[in-house]
Amino acid sequence: MAKELTTRQENYSQWYNDLVTKADLAENSAVRGCMVIKPYGYAIWEFMHDALDRMFKQTGHVNAYFPLFIPKSFLSKEASHVEGFAKECAVVTHSRLMSNPNGNGVIVDPESKLEEELIVRPTSETIIWDTYRNWIKSYRDLPILVNQWANVVRWEMRTRLFLRTAEFLWQEGHTAHATKEEALTEARKMLEVYAEFAEKHMALPVIKGIKSANERFAGAVETFCIEAMMQDGKALQAGTSHFLGQNFAKAFDVKFLNKENKLDYVWATSWGVSTRLMGALIMAHSDDNGLVLPPKVAPIEVVIVPIYKTDDQRQAVINYCVEMKERLEKKGLRVKFDDRDTQKPGFKFAEWEMKGVPVRLAAGPRDVENKTVELARRDTMEKMEISENGMEEKITALLEEIQENIYQKALKYRKDNTVRVDTWDDFKKNIENGKFVYAHWDGTTETELKIKEETKATLRCIPLDDDLEDGIDVYSGKPSKRRVIFAKAY
Amino acid sequence: MAKELTTRQENYSQWYNDLVTKADLAENSAVRGCMVIKPYGYAIWEFMHDALDRMFKQTGHVNAYFPLFIPKSFLSKEASHVEGFAKECAVVTHSRLMSNPNGNGVIVDPESKLEEELIVRPTSETIIWDTYRNWIKSYRDLPILVNQWANVVRWEMRTRLFLRTAEFLWQEGHTAHATKEEALTEARKMLEVYAEFAEKHMALPVIKGIKSANERFAGAVETFCIEAMMQDGKALQAGTSHFLGQNFAKAFDVKFLNKENKLDYVWATSWGVSTRLMGALIMAHSDDNGLVLPPKVAPIEVVIVPIYKTDDQRQAVINYCVEMKERLEKKGLRVKFDDRDTQKPGFKFAEWEMKGVPVRLAAGPRDVENKTVELARRDTMEKMEISENGMEEKITALLEEIQENIYQKALKYRKDNTVRVDTWDDFKKNIENGKFVYAHWDGTTETELKIKEETKATLRCIPLDDDLEDGIDVYSGKPSKRRVIFAKAY
Repeated sequence: MAKELTTRQENYSQWYNDLVTKADLAENSAVRGCMVIKPYGYAIWEFMHDALDRMFKQTGHVNAYFPLFIPKSFLSKEASHVEGFAKECAVVTHSRLMSNPNGNGVIVDPESKLEEELIVRPTSETIIWDTYRNWIKSYRDLPILVNQWANVVRWEMRTRLFLRTAEFLWQEGHTAHATKEEALTEARKMLEVYAEFAEKHMALPVIKGIKSANERFAGAVETFCIEAMMQDGKALQAGTSHFLGQNFAKAFDVKFLNKENKLDYVWATSWGVSTRLMGALIMAHSDDNGLVLPPKVAPIEVVIVPIYKTDDQRQAVINYCVEMKERLEKKGLRVKFDDRDTQKPGFKFAEWEMKGVPVRLAAGPRDVENKTVELARRDTMEKMEISENGMEEKITALLEEIQENIYQKALKYRKDNTVRVDTWDDFKKNIENGKFVYAHWDGTTETELKIKEETKATLRCIPLDDDLEDGIDVYSGKPSKRRVIFAKAY
Repeated sequence: MAKELTTRQENYSQWYNDLVTKADLAENSAVRGCMVIKPYGYAIWEFMHDALDRMFKQTGHVNAYFPLFIPKSFLSKEASHVEGFAKECAVVTHSRLMSNPNGNGVIVDPESKLEEELIVRPTSETIIWDTYRNWIKSYRDLPILVNQWANVVRWEMRTRLFLRTAEFLWQEGHTAHATKEEALTEARKMLEVYAEFAEKHMALPVIKGIKSANERFAGAVETFCIEAMMQDGKALQAGTSHFLGQNFAKAFDVKFLNKENKLDYVWATSWGVSTRLMGALIMAHSDDNGLVLPPKVAPIEVVIVPIYKTDDQRQAVINYCVEMKERLEKKGLRVKFDDRDTQKPGFKFAEWEMKGVPVRLAAGPRDVENKTVELARRDTMEKMEISENGMEEKITALLEEIQENIYQKALKYRKDNTVRVDTWDDFKKNIENGKFVYAHWDGTTETELKIKEETKATLRCIPLDDDLEDGIDVYSGKPSKRRVIFAKAY
């Protein structure tokens, strides 16, 4: 097999890079840190996009579109916001090129210098709250429940396909509310939407939690997050939902007349997930043969490969396969019939395994005769022979089973790699071994940073679903009210 | 009515600006030339996006995503391409901001200057063909049929919402082929897709044609286009499809082994439509009461307004309306029940007229009693009383009739405002009067530019569906083989 991957055990990081390339998901471009999302990778993203978009609309949100550029002065209006983003900004300074007077090519026309520099949006709170000022006069104009699908740019120095790229695709919800309670409810609601999407569509178990002050979004009062475990035990933040308080309303002077006819600042949330989720999807489920896709986000759910040797056999097998394809499509399944005659079946098997197609069917002359078909499931690599009679129902049910199995497998993996520790030695050992560590923390940024310095573990979140429990900080020995999760992270 | 528009007759241009604002479609942002597409405007764009995306996929195309940035040196690789875009480029020169050492705010960190400037894509031929070089080795890798949905930036000096903005949303198809014939067929096929979309979905009659050399896309061998007439008689280019020959393959050294095992340059097309179509949609159909939407792109097809005076009446009327809403939604219609109690029915009527909802239903206590409902169609402003019995079928059929009527109205308008002229005096008079003028042209750029200089009319296209006809150029008196279309244009 030409497309062999580095194994996970050999080199997890290289395995990921190999897989992204060999499954035709994405590649690096000529522009530093920017990726090309290839058609197969983009098709998966489209399924994620469409499912999320439906969920946003079902929860009352509408889409809109705001400018790519943010005036430099806007960024500095919210103090912690600019601090968070200033060091990774793509800055537009000129608006024209001209022929190089010294010869070939073009140079930037110095006369086209902009009066004020523009930043390519790293996130859109500032330009959106500048716009909302004109949309909001009274409580009757609230809530505003807007989402935007867009590209954003953060000038990262060390990039990895999907996980950390200078440009990425995402959605950013920006909502405006009359009361603090309503905004908090919205932020929590969207966290639930993200968790449901991750678990039901991506088959990705997530932990819902609150970020520590140190890990909070630049400009937020509270950041909620979902955290997932990858197969190397590292955490990946899969989505965040921020309660922004009145920070941006104050920075952009967005006031409204409340029901008591008094002027007040508007309350805000923002929330986003990005093409980073593609990285999570790949790393959570895939194996040494390639991608493993949950059926709900698989561009192809079933691939059919014909097997024949002679021309005589060919037509009968192809007819048989085409008929199966049509029957499955009638049931609403996404089916690919791989009838290329330039490749052998073995090559095709390996290719579709690499691309993570959940179910593969293969049929040869004997299958035509016996009215059977060979079925291979990608998640377990099991093969079985099934009768073509009633195969639509069998395969439909199997796809649901596969979806659930992939989820359960990831959940078991996380459980097996999660520990509660109460001593600093245990803490260090388990972090070193790639575990999610539930440990007591004294609540200070100081301790959090020292732990990070000594172990490279970050405080992933304060889990929302856990009970309070008195204890002692594993590092500082100071009192603690609850356990939090530490892990190494992407 | 508070939301009154400037009439078309009074000031067509102001009418358009008023309408875009008052129908809540878009507004100018704080960033020069960049617009905010508001939720209602964006919802219409989503219908256009989804319909086009389906059509692209049905014709074998897949989506992908390429970087926002283009290295400056890439732009200059295709000579006419850079000439076409150099004067309107947003140029990224730095990657960091820093605190202003002199006081408040932030400044661009001079140490973060990029080695090579990046251009925010005005179109993506260059970055895509740089990528295709690695994708294409042999004829087996062809064709590549890729589309991208993206934002692009062209630093326009004079901007208008939707029609001409510095940033706009669009799709750009970029295909690669083994032969000239196949590429030409593709370019023509996508022109047909655009024409079908415009006519069937947007109810916008279009003329398919070829651009003159002077109006050709920068880097194309041939540019096909669809041209539509607006209600002031001006033309609007609603989509273009380019046959690029081997220009970009040569500029980016993209060769392939053909079936004869010889190296050859790859043949290319590109094709695009943008949020400019929103401008066309608005200007082609709307009237002095506001937007008129063809049902197929209407976010709301039917709006229901309850009418009552007393609290006693209220509940019965609301129940009656809700039931109608549910029945219509069961038929797959997009229905809004406007149950706001903060606004009177007259206000609501005007608002939904402004927003172009194709069908309005209004029901009061007498309707509840008589099992009737008042129906108003937006395109003709006719009102009628219909029985609630069987109203789903009536309204479904009516929506189709409205779609067709809007198309026929626009088609009639174009026919009524199209003339064939054979003298220069007639030419000037008719251009002045806002007509599409079919005239003989000698085929030279020189004549084309002189005509433009004297009349402001541009050569819209050489129509594809017309017969050849010998004649004499209306301006130069030189011989001509066919008529072409001149008009003033957006």
